[in-house]
Amino acid sequence: MKAAVYQGDQRIVVEDFPIPEPGPNEILVRIQYSAICGTDVHAFLYDIAPPGSVLGHEFSGVVEKIGSSVETWNQGDRVIGGGGTPPPGLEAPLRRQDQYNYRTEGFTSTRKRGYSEFTVLNDWEPLKIPENVTDLQACLTEPCAVVVRAVRLSNLRLGDTAVVIGAGPIGLLCMQAVKAAGARKVIVVEPVEARRNVALHLGADAVIDPTIEDVNEAAILLTDGSGPHVVFECAAAKSTLETAFRIVRKKGNVMLVALAWDEVPLVPVDWAGKELSFNTTFGSEHYDWITALNLIESGKVSLDPLMSDADIIGLEGIQKAFEGLCEPSTQVQVIIDLNEPSTV
Amino acid sequence: MKAAVYQGDQRIVVEDFPIPEPGPNEILVRIQYSAICGTDVHAFLYDIAPPGSVLGHEFSGVVEKIGSSVETWNQGDRVIGGGGTPPPGLEAPLRRQDQYNYRTEGFTSTRKRGYSEFTVLNDWEPLKIPENVTDLQACLTEPCAVVVRAVRLSNLRLGDTAVVIGAGPIGLLCMQAVKAAGARKVIVVEPVEARRNVALHLGADAVIDPTIEDVNEAAILLTDGSGPHVVFECAAAKSTLETAFRIVRKKGNVMLVALAWDEVPLVPVDWAGKELSFNTTFGSEHYDWITALNLIESGKVSLDPLMSDADIIGLEGIQKAFEGLCEPSTQVQVIIDLNEPSTV
Amino acid sequence: MKAAVYQGDQRIVVEDFPIPEPGPNEILVRIQYSAICGTDVHAFLYDIAPPGSVLGHEFSGVVEKIGSSVETWNQGDRVIGGGGTPPPGLEAPLRRQDQYNYRTEGFTSTRKRGYSEFTVLNDWEPLKIPENVTDLQACLTEPCAVVVRAVRLSNLRLGDTAVVIGAGPIGLLCMQAVKAAGARKVIVVEPVEARRNVALHLGADAVIDPTIEDVNEAAILLTDGSGPHVVFECAAAKSTLETAFRIVRKKGNVMLVALAWDEVPLVPVDWAGKELSFNTTFGSEHYDWITALNLIESGKVSLDPLMSDADIIGLEGIQKAFEGLCEPSTQVQVIIDLNEPSTV
Amino acid sequence: MKAAVYQGDQRIVVEDFPIPEPGPNEILVRIQYSAICGTDVHAFLYDIAPPGSVLGHEFSGVVEKIGSSVETWNQGDRVIGGGGTPPPGLEAPLRRQDQYNYRTEGFTSTRKRGYSEFTVLNDWEPLKIPENVTDLQACLTEPCAVVVRAVRLSNLRLGDTAVVIGAGPIGLLCMQAVKAAGARKVIVVEPVEARRNVALHLGADAVIDPTIEDVNEAAILLTDGSGPHVVFECAAAKSTLETAFRIVRKKGNVMLVALAWDEVPLVPVDWAGKELSFNTTFGSEHYDWITALNLIESGKVSLDPLMSDADIIGLEGIQKAFEGLCEPSTQVQVIIDLNEPSTV
Repeated sequence: MKAAVYQGDQRIVVEDFPIPEPGPNEILVRIQYSAICGTDVHAFLYDIAPPGSVLGHEFSGVVEKIGSSVETWNQGDRVIGGGGTPPPGLEAPLRRQDQYNYRTEGFTSTRKRGYSEFTVLNDWEPLKIPENVTDLQACLTEPCAVVVRAVRLSNLRLGDTAVVIGAGPIGLLCMQAVKAAGARKVIVVEPVEARRNVALHLGADAVIDPTIEDVNEAAILLTDGSGPHVVFECAAAKSTLETAFRIVRKKGNVMLVALAWDEVPLVPVDWAGKELSFNTTFGSEHYDWITALNLIESGKVSLDPLMSDADIIGLEGIQKAFEGLCEPSTQVQVIIDLNEPSTV
Repeated sequence: MKAAVYQGDQRIVVEDFPIPEPGPNEILVRIQYSAICGTDVHAFLYDIAPPGSVLGHEFSGVVEKIGSSVETWNQGDRVIGGGGTPPPGLEAPLRRQDQYNYRTEGFTSTRKRGYSEFTVLNDWEPLKIPENVTDLQACLTEPCAVVVRAVRLSNLRLGDTAVVIGAGPIGLLCMQAVKAAGARKVIVVEPVEARRNVALHLGADAVIDPTIEDVNEAAILLTDGSGPHVVFECAAAKSTLETAFRIVRKKGNVMLVALAWDEVPLVPVDWAGKELSFNTTFGSEHYDWITALNLIESGKVSLDPLMSDADIIGLEGIQKAFEGLCEPSTQVQVIIDLNEPSTV
Repeated sequence: MKAAVYQGDQRIVVEDFPIPEPGPNEILVRIQYSAICGTDVHAFLYDIAPPGSVLGHEFSGVVEKIGSSVETWNQGDRVIGGGGTPPPGLEAPLRRQDQYNYRTEGFTSTRKRGYSEFTVLNDWEPLKIPENVTDLQACLTEPCAVVVRAVRLSNLRLGDTAVVIGAGPIGLLCMQAVKAAGARKVIVVEPVEARRNVALHLGADAVIDPTIEDVNEAAILLTDGSGPHVVFECAAAKSTLETAFRIVRKKGNVMLVALAWDEVPLVPVDWAGKELSFNTTFGSEHYDWITALNLIESGKVSLDPLMSDADIIGLEGIQKAFEGLCEPSTQVQVIIDLNEPSTV
Repeated sequence: MKAAVYQGDQRIVVEDFPIPEPGPNEILVRIQYSAICGTDVHAFLYDIAPPGSVLGHEFSGVVEKIGSSVETWNQGDRVIGGGGTPPPGLEAPLRRQDQYNYRTEGFTSTRKRGYSEFTVLNDWEPLKIPENVTDLQACLTEPCAVVVRAVRLSNLRLGDTAVVIGAGPIGLLCMQAVKAAGARKVIVVEPVEARRNVALHLGADAVIDPTIEDVNEAAILLTDGSGPHVVFECAAAKSTLETAFRIVRKKGNVMLVALAWDEVPLVPVDWAGKELSFNTTFGSEHYDWITALNLIESGKVSLDPLMSDADIIGLEGIQKAFEGLCEPSTQVQVIIDLNEPSTV
């Protein structure tokens, strides 16, 4: 089978491997689609991933083979590569540790994951894909679960106004989750016109172009002159966290979704008088995935506008795709199509 | 009467004024002690206060004269210059506005306040000084109310561990309020040895010297290896907010008390995985003052170690005091003694 | 003009009055529709309303005349009889007092309100009816604001499961507000078949008939075997609050919307181990109305199924309507049509 | 060894058993003191405990023997019979289940526990007794951990006022934990004079005798005319939960600590307008015990006034003690002294 192996120094090479055998409580999954996540781009850009690792954690596939003790899956089952409930003690490190640093601890494994034709999962790891969700849609369940968690951990309440900063994949999903949670008004801040248009198409009540508008003024004006109740920071640009604090209303909440890896400057004196709150969210848990699937199934979150044909590439295009994603871009989402894998 | 008037350009001059007459619902207060607050130092340092204004909002005094309609005060009553409950609609701007910026809106009045021999207050503004609280202690009720509010708005719970960054007047008061709220352990981070010693004297369980210790390591080690439940940022130095986020434990709370006026850099990727919360607090309200007085009366907050003789100056020393407070210092608190005012 | 005056002893008589003149800052409103609220039924049933009072606080109308100083309204404006922001100090008693008892303080005014052809309002009191909302719909904005507030004050988060107990007008509105807030599943408990059918028509995911099903078992089974995250008590029957506590999941929230006037029994040992929370909500504030109108305008809350022709009566039918509402009933909502008032 | 075995029908008989052998990861503990908890009295009174069971979960003792794989304990270590951190998946049922009913699931084990000369514990179960805590004091760590958890889960903040209803052992501990958490005023409601006196001795700011005073009026008067911010219900009498709801201030919190096993009546209309919150707490977790020990060590919680000589009995007195505790009583705490056990 083919897998895209990180070599260090921002280099990914597709290599050949024997197809692995699942252990007694494991399943072998033939991967269909694997989405490229911004965190993987960061691992590439900052050269954090250990050489030899196969990244990729947003994928859908089909069960190819089950381990001898597996009772919950059958060959042919369509699965999403995550979202299951870990047994006690096997939760992700960040759920178990009192201190967790994503930069230093987020990319320590060299296990083969989603940028590969096959992968092996513990039987409790994946979720079943609902009938009316396609394999292509299913590979975006993970980022959808991430924004569901962000909305759940924010203080957003029915009828609140919200601003989403950034209309990349996470921002566009977040915007939809915010609408699904009953926000009265959702405003999206995004410099790229194509992305602003997708935001409007997906139901944003207004968009702000920070390259020509004063975001602070515009955002406050669009929210009853008060500022939004909640701001979701989905951009991680140099100025966007400060913008979030500047526009949020008194006692409002800033929810950090996208993570800056470089220093971002804040000026507390300009906004601390609002007695605001700020929260960070990270990854997702079982219930977030269940909710994400529910939103996808019900159509409250629409994934199709995030995926234009042009963004679906073969595994061999992965190096170029990562390089492209390190540059400012108008692209919304890149997905690797692995549908023609080697035979077992 | 004498009052210290800000002239602009970091210059304060003591000038003579006629003693003002209180209006029907006002009282004239002969000021005893007036403490210099860090926010006034900022107004001086950044030249924000409007020329002609008399700053000073931490003071105690005696009622000299009451307006014709005043029923709640008598001549001779000992008062603290704040803490009363404003009538509906007269709350401080920051309590009424949905957007408030302290830098641009915090110093707009030219009203004569605490750095003056006399001041006029609305009859609802001051609080009575309890019998067993001295005039000197009473002038520090306001900063004590500020830390009470900080603790009340933080998520600190009985038995939590806490770190207080900075042992200036606010940090030392905060540390005591945190102990009064039942923290199991309070650790103070402070580069100046004299201040660390006051912190220990006032009950800190441990102190960290950031000039020779790795604060992150030390703070986490001292809190069961997990990091503190709550961090109070009372320093507003360039690195201290990032330190707060780095050391706080998963799901913990960072409470911003001291406000940086210059950019402070944050690196979210290093701590966002902890799904932490952050809150800002600002000023104080009636109930915070009531609680502050209760803590002072009961001895749970001790003010005396904050005030050494050397720090009590006459009004004429105010320019030099402000200049000194703009420099890194070992001083804890400067108080202006106005006990020998002009005669009425 | 005609108004329905409470006489005491569960008797309401329609009497003739001169049409009142609005004061300088008041407006005279010609009432179109006035809905009968359960709290008025309680005031009638328990004979709490002071004789001489004209009840009714859910109404829509048209501005007939404006006071000499009124600048925000014009004759002919379509208005809802509430929802405005009170000036400081004029908030409803329950918002200003630290102790408030609805039984003893809720019905002390004898002012003429909604069960009348005309009423006088302060100019800040009403809200404008949006263009695409009919007068008939508008008279139900108040109960819709009540459930909006209930959902906002509950801990309901995107994706949560919820049970609504009772499918009277409040329950049916609540159910829709819960869906609008992104609940993954909403289950309605209601003994009357007609009401259960309206609930299903309005989007309930499931209904439970407590006369033939074990509510506890059914509700828990329908919510992943865990019980709902939030239960909204909209029935105020003898057993329904205990039911709410019995079915809610560990750490879940019970929100009390409908108020029992008689004793309801609880058995804490049976549910306290779940470390649950419980909240009460009362009335509504400006932002709840704004949100309610937004939900009505957007169609997320549908009012029409709550109002069948049979339930729209003339003012003269009010005594009989109140008597009927004191009995167990299949009716959902009774509305008084005042569209053919006396001429001015 | 001797152990007090519940026989059913409110009968406890002391029987002889062989001293058990600890398994590889277990330790044998020679019990010193075992306190009788109200929940055991309930199990006795309502005949819920399974015949053959040995109750008792508040005890201190000495390690007599360690299993072959035990590395964390040595013979002679002084231990408290609980408070350790369970390994993943071994948490108490109520922490793992989404639905838990203490009446039906709280007393299902027949394992020998504290009313016995020896007991076997998993090596992770007990905590070490700090040097300056006596064995006698240590046996009350568990109820102290229970009230610590209650205070931690309540909304009590520094400076709040609080009412504790009931001055039995739990109420007296709760009152002290509330003071330790920085309450400005703690008022205790208790009909028994001896208990009221202990409350005052332990620092209550005021006590209310419900047999001669109107509790509602008195409690509100003593809390600035507003009612307490938080009420701790530690009595579980027929009327005390309603009292809690009646006196708490608007937006205040009622925390349920003691559990009624019989119906308690509530009348929501009388207090729902206050938009209050209510929480239940149950048992305790590791961190609650750590905090409890810290409070005991520091003297912030004083246990000695809870234990007069007369209340310390031998194992043979257990039947009579339970019978006595089923009656209204002036006793504060009963403790079984097991210091002269059979030899190994």
